[in-house]
Amino acid sequence: MTIQVLNGANLGRLGTREPSIYGDTTYAELTALIEKTARDLGVGVLVRQTDDEAELLHWIHAAADTGDPVVINPGGWSHTSVVLADALAAVEAPVVEVHISNIHKREEFRHHSYVSSVADGVIVGLGVQGYVMAVQWLAAEGTT
Amino acid sequence: MTIQVLNGANLGRLGTREPSIYGDTTYAELTALIEKTARDLGVGVLVRQTDDEAELLHWIHAAADTGDPVVINPGGWSHTSVVLADALAAVEAPVVEVHISNIHKREEFRHHSYVSSVADGVIVGLGVQGYVMAVQWLAAEGTT
Amino acid sequence: MTIQVLNGANLGRLGTREPSIYGDTTYAELTALIEKTARDLGVGVLVRQTDDEAELLHWIHAAADTGDPVVINPGGWSHTSVVLADALAAVEAPVVEVHISNIHKREEFRHHSYVSSVADGVIVGLGVQGYVMAVQWLAAEGTT
Amino acid sequence: MTIQVLNGANLGRLGTREPSIYGDTTYAELTALIEKTARDLGVGVLVRQTDDEAELLHWIHAAADTGDPVVINPGGWSHTSVVLADALAAVEAPVVEVHISNIHKREEFRHHSYVSSVADGVIVGLGVQGYVMAVQWLAAEGTT
Amino acid sequence: MTIQVLNGANLGRLGTREPSIYGDTTYAELTALIEKTARDLGVGVLVRQTDDEAELLHWIHAAADTGDPVVINPGGWSHTSVVLADALAAVEAPVVEVHISNIHKREEFRHHSYVSSVADGVIVGLGVQGYVMAVQWLAAEGTT
Amino acid sequence: MTIQVLNGANLGRLGTREPSIYGDTTYAELTALIEKTARDLGVGVLVRQTDDEAELLHWIHAAADTGDPVVINPGGWSHTSVVLADALAAVEAPVVEVHISNIHKREEFRHHSYVSSVADGVIVGLGVQGYVMAVQWLAAEGTT
Amino acid sequence: MTIQVLNGANLGRLGTREPSIYGDTTYAELTALIEKTARDLGVGVLVRQTDDEAELLHWIHAAADTGDPVVINPGGWSHTSVVLADALAAVEAPVVEVHISNIHKREEFRHHSYVSSVADGVIVGLGVQGYVMAVQWLAAEGTT
Amino acid sequence: MTIQVLNGANLGRLGTREPSIYGDTTYAELTALIEKTARDLGVGVLVRQTDDEAELLHWIHAAADTGDPVVINPGGWSHTSVVLADALAAVEAPVVEVHISNIHKREEFRHHSYVSSVADGVIVGLGVQGYVMAVQWLAAEGTT
Amino acid sequence: MTIQVLNGANLGRLGTREPSIYGDTTYAELTALIEKTARDLGVGVLVRQTDDEAELLHWIHAAADTGDPVVINPGGWSHTSVVLADALAAVEAPVVEVHISNIHKREEFRHHSYVSSVADGVIVGLGVQGYVMAVQWLAAEGTT
Amino acid sequence: MTIQVLNGANLGRLGTREPSIYGDTTYAELTALIEKTARDLGVGVLVRQTDDEAELLHWIHAAADTGDPVVINPGGWSHTSVVLADALAAVEAPVVEVHISNIHKREEFRHHSYVSSVADGVIVGLGVQGYVMAVQWLAAEGTT
Amino acid sequence: MTIQVLNGANLGRLGTREPSIYGDTTYAELTALIEKTARDLGVGVLVRQTDDEAELLHWIHAAADTGDPVVINPGGWSHTSVVLADALAAVEAPVVEVHISNIHKREEFRHHSYVSSVADGVIVGLGVQGYVMAVQWLAAEGTT
Amino acid sequence: MTIQVLNGANLGRLGTREPSIYGDTTYAELTALIEKTARDLGVGVLVRQTDDEAELLHWIHAAADTGDPVVINPGGWSHTSVVLADALAAVEAPVVEVHISNIHKREEFRHHSYVSSVADGVIVGLGVQGYVMAVQWLAAEGTT
Repeated sequence: MTIQVLNGANLGRLGTREPSIYGDTTYAELTALIEKTARDLGVGVLVRQTDDEAELLHWIHAAADTGDPVVINPGGWSHTSVVLADALAAVEAPVVEVHISNIHKREEFRHHSYVSSVADGVIVGLGVQGYVMAVQWLAAEGTT
Repeated sequence: MTIQVLNGANLGRLGTREPSIYGDTTYAELTALIEKTARDLGVGVLVRQTDDEAELLHWIHAAADTGDPVVINPGGWSHTSVVLADALAAVEAPVVEVHISNIHKREEFRHHSYVSSVADGVIVGLGVQGYVMAVQWLAAEGTT
Repeated sequence: MTIQVLNGANLGRLGTREPSIYGDTTYAELTALIEKTARDLGVGVLVRQTDDEAELLHWIHAAADTGDPVVINPGGWSHTSVVLADALAAVEAPVVEVHISNIHKREEFRHHSYVSSVADGVIVGLGVQGYVMAVQWLAAEGTT
Repeated sequence: MTIQVLNGANLGRLGTREPSIYGDTTYAELTALIEKTARDLGVGVLVRQTDDEAELLHWIHAAADTGDPVVINPGGWSHTSVVLADALAAVEAPVVEVHISNIHKREEFRHHSYVSSVADGVIVGLGVQGYVMAVQWLAAEGTT
Repeated sequence: MTIQVLNGANLGRLGTREPSIYGDTTYAELTALIEKTARDLGVGVLVRQTDDEAELLHWIHAAADTGDPVVINPGGWSHTSVVLADALAAVEAPVVEVHISNIHKREEFRHHSYVSSVADGVIVGLGVQGYVMAVQWLAAEGTT
Repeated sequence: MTIQVLNGANLGRLGTREPSIYGDTTYAELTALIEKTARDLGVGVLVRQTDDEAELLHWIHAAADTGDPVVINPGGWSHTSVVLADALAAVEAPVVEVHISNIHKREEFRHHSYVSSVADGVIVGLGVQGYVMAVQWLAAEGTT
Repeated sequence: MTIQVLNGANLGRLGTREPSIYGDTTYAELTALIEKTARDLGVGVLVRQTDDEAELLHWIHAAADTGDPVVINPGGWSHTSVVLADALAAVEAPVVEVHISNIHKREEFRHHSYVSSVADGVIVGLGVQGYVMAVQWLAAEGTT
Repeated sequence: MTIQVLNGANLGRLGTREPSIYGDTTYAELTALIEKTARDLGVGVLVRQTDDEAELLHWIHAAADTGDPVVINPGGWSHTSVVLADALAAVEAPVVEVHISNIHKREEFRHHSYVSSVADGVIVGLGVQGYVMAVQWLAAEGTT
Repeated sequence: MTIQVLNGANLGRLGTREPSIYGDTTYAELTALIEKTARDLGVGVLVRQTDDEAELLHWIHAAADTGDPVVINPGGWSHTSVVLADALAAVEAPVVEVHISNIHKREEFRHHSYVSSVADGVIVGLGVQGYVMAVQWLAAEGTT
Repeated sequence: MTIQVLNGANLGRLGTREPSIYGDTTYAELTALIEKTARDLGVGVLVRQTDDEAELLHWIHAAADTGDPVVINPGGWSHTSVVLADALAAVEAPVVEVHISNIHKREEFRHHSYVSSVADGVIVGLGVQGYVMAVQWLAAEGTT
Repeated sequence: MTIQVLNGANLGRLGTREPSIYGDTTYAELTALIEKTARDLGVGVLVRQTDDEAELLHWIHAAADTGDPVVINPGGWSHTSVVLADALAAVEAPVVEVHISNIHKREEFRHHSYVSSVADGVIVGLGVQGYVMAVQWLAAEGTT
Repeated sequence: MTIQVLNGANLGRLGTREPSIYGDTTYAELTALIEKTARDLGVGVLVRQTDDEAELLHWIHAAADTGDPVVINPGGWSHTSVVLADALAAVEAPVVEVHISNIHKREEFRHHSYVSSVADGVIVGLGVQGYVMAVQWLAAEGTT
């Protein structure tokens, strides 16, 4: 089992893009943090980011095939992409959606995520720690 | 004239993805079925699928240039993609939209398709036979 | 098994009423076309039309009792008649809804049909060929 | 040319049903008033009422066939019947919609009439005189 | 005084139509149950059902003329028929609306009934006993 | 009694402005037509037009003071001016709202008029004859 | 089995509060009426009222524990309290919601009740007799 | 610093109430789990539950006074209680909202929480582990 | 006559809670200010605050019984509590609603108050002076 | 400092226009009342009314220039005039909006005022005393 | 050809009114800037501003008569004035709408302009340069 | 500084796609026109088009890194792509959105653009000159 940590559009810009909203941890630091979390838990993890919806769909298809659990931060696609939610609906392993910022404090259109209704759970607003917690939860699920 | 049968995101997963909704015909079987239909009718057909919106747009642009009729199953993009509908609006040959499942029995957001208002007709809920019927209709149109 | 082809209000006016929307095939020609289709397929068919909702309900009740599949073009009742959808919900054989024009290109209120959510599938905008295709699909279903 | 004055559901109850809303002129008196108006104008008129939607559709179909102009008070069907509006859309002669009461002073659902968008004009709230005025207008149109 | 128990579209199918929703009491058994209730109470009752809106309107008009109280289950017309509510608004004797199933547990469009705002009271979800209770209440009202 | 015929913004442009919508009768011709109607009926009439909301309010206030009935075509203010409706609500004599075009066939925002709910009746879509009919109706009311 | 008759906020004011809406039976008389009904039926009943949401929740929790059926008139909480509906959803014995007045004739916000979708049935507008009928229905259910 | 873990209406019923939605961990087990988490982290924790909105407000007021961070599961009040959100808005220490079930998979009215826009973050659908994660996050925040 | 000044949830926190919105006058100072106002006017006043909806309902019931006028600041309950408005509707003496902040400058959900439609008048945004003015107005009303 | 008391459309008709809504104090009496209030307070006041939006804008512009506080009753413009609110937004001195009637008890469209979100406070439903209170509040503000 | 540059309500206040939104260029400077632009282009220009809707309508009527192109900044009337859009619809020469601020960043009600759907184009958010660009575009159009 | 002129989906089809809407200038001619404009102004410009959302995001990310200003015509993505607006929000240099056609004259869904609220300004409906004007404005901004 390898936990797939999948990040959508613009998340590679973390740390440089609107730090007042998303914090100043860079994407590289985020990756390192998640990998360390996984190492400490003794589980495999693969952290990736893409601005290409097709690539993200393929990663999800692969997870559906291998049975890997998924942590997903779809970024702005959360609010607009039905195909993303459709792909995730076919993943049988647990799926956790993560948002770094608290989307419920922001514009109205960010309050709805197509992904939330196909994920098992959602963590929002707890910064990059949200990823850590999602990985911990999936690791614990995997050993239950 | 080659009938362009264009499939959008996630449709390559046919047969493995949520068979209770989409049936258990695989995408390969679907392709074979459509090709056999075209052969029987003596018309050309090209069946393709992509998870990449840009690729789908290019296929549609090509059809607009060649004057080929189009069968399109946009999958989840039906409900969210204006650019797809915009590209199809420039196709002068007939366009038929197909959905394998009956989208009107599913979530509210699946009841509206941007594509429907630029297509000539729509076939939903009749399974993979919907493609066969669309090809037959376009073949008949082409000989009228 | 006799496929019941049931037409709702105003459809008897086909060919004379707004031909720019509904085409110039007359209702008599439509009936002949469907009957020929059925003959060619070797299945029974009964094509009827009524402007009386009660009569349409009774035809559907009868189909529910005999187990006959149904092709239904409810006309304008599609958008307003719950009782029609309620009657069709009790038909266990397959039901296909047909619309001659592409209702998704027309007024907003025509985009929703109560019948669509109780039918197995829907064919819109393919003209009178929509009936032919519906009968073909039901005939094939019946022999599966 | 015979002006068809067609009244929908419950209008036969005029004078007895909720006179505070609809006034105390009976349906018989209304008929007489309209017939006198027509006689004075030297035009033919046929005043009818039905609680049966199918019958009303048939009268409209007949008017479409004969080219007769129509005065229609659809009663409560105004707000719910698409098939009625569809039938009227096929009438090429002028159509005037009449409401005895001022529907814009009443419940929200009475503010919209499917018929209004297919009629040439609408007269509301002027009591039974609305019929007289509609007949006068149609008679004048007919002689233009 | 004869209590008019009036049933709308599809209710004659009771017991055969979707018993998981409407129960397995047949319409004949329902009629017998109501008639027994009336007999026990010493009041007159007339139980009727129609799929024809016009016929239902006429029964209501007759009740308005005779001053009879009304038990009405409009079935699917509840949600769409303004003319039905208009006719009932002219009944001065008490009117009770009955629904066998709990319409508030079902589709959104069943949560609103035009009839409810012109009836004195409404009983939903208590099965065929709802009719019995409505008759008992009207009988008691009549003797007050 | 002088019937006040009050026209709102842009109506002075009649005949030159968008004749496909409003017809080619000029405002001067309209005035003459109404004055002739009044002369024929033996009633007083005063036809005025203004593009200044304040002036229109003052004319309505004056009518409220003198008890004169009002024919009003508020033009585009129908859909936006609460103060106009408020002023008319204080007129105790009858008020008839007139629209030359059928506003129900036009943009959605033209389907609602604040004035309609404070007028006695409304005539739409019957061209300049709508004014004639309104004056006739008010004249008849005045002699009742 | 003891039928729990639970009344929400303001219902203790019955008979003094807005009698034109709620009638002039006092809360004490209501209690006596229900108790007599139960005695006549030979079933236990406990009639209580509270203006304290927490107390009402506790009574419902207790009914869930003992398996007692519930008659509930949530008063104004019907339209606003999710926690009340959540508590009732955990009651496995039958639940009947009662409203003394016909809430469908009143303000729009009273037309929706969170409780209705978790109750078995609903009785509205039949005055205090609604409680009697609910107890009778539950007593009959209990002996089936 | 004592982390205040505050549970709203019906949560004391955990384990017995709708376990298919909320799981079968009892409230006592939940409390023990959270207390163990806090002990392991070396932070103080106080786990409380109430069905009384006033009591919950007072606990929040106290947290605002002491500067304690808050984990809150408002239950059904999430969707309806402005006063709860108002009280939490005055808490300067971090606040994490927790929901055991994934509210985005449930009824529409559960998708919005007044509390979410005043909390720092939200964890939904991860079962009772959501509390554990919230406490861990707050403990880490407190030592930063 | 004793003017009842009733304050709802969180208002006891005045001066400490979000002073940028509610100002820095404490609740004790508010009470003193109102009492001084009453003394100066020679009228009785009773200033109370509660976070318990039931207690507030009881105070309103008492005012309804004694005929005392009411100044009410329902706080966040304004926007959500139907039972509060229902209780106030039964108060025959004048009722004035007060809000310290200008709720129309704040979140959309604060723009509607159930209480406003049952109060005689409303004062918002004028700070604690709003209470003073409400008491002065009620005192003047009482002596008219 | 001169307090500008500005009244919008139709308010000059006070006392004669719909006294059941607006009371029977005339506009002249209102002016006298406000002037007496100002005299008693030792502040300057200028009471004006206009039915001309441009004139009202100019008075507001002047107040913005002189720094005078404003009492404004925009009448029906409250609900429709963005330019009025825009002009008031540029007034730095305090602004109080007054409505004689309780607009929250009236039609839905009167519940929203563009002016409320740019005013400091709002007084509704307290009759002509609302003006007195607004002047008193502004006078007190001016001396703080 | 004289380009008519027409400014609506409050725009005469430019430079003094909310400079953080509208910039600190005064209206006089704006006029000079536009006049210089026109001189440089060798076209006629007439820059005017009014707070009186009637005056603005008359200027537009005049432009319709002379065939002059129009630059219009309707200010707050953009969002509320149908009569303004109606007048502009009758201008056959090109019309460009200009807004100094970016209305799409501001309140929801500023996102819709009745004028935009009758103008040829719209320039928003580019400050006073928007006028310059509009004049340049119209000058170029006029010489095409 | 190089002005980035970025065109989204389908814009490469300019001149061939629906010329009645978008004009007959080809994309190559548009590029030449913009490049000439930049040359004349002495500023750098890079004109690009893509049907691939990911590629467009990368171009925007690059502009954010280099500090280049952006002219963007997102085509149909304007109305659906949050990720595009998110990327643009991180561009600190000025951003101007351009639409060739007047989107406010077209379908309702084209009236809203996610990009407009993160751009500095928007130019719509002025054809390919809109690009020229945007480049001129940015060039002038860059030299201020």
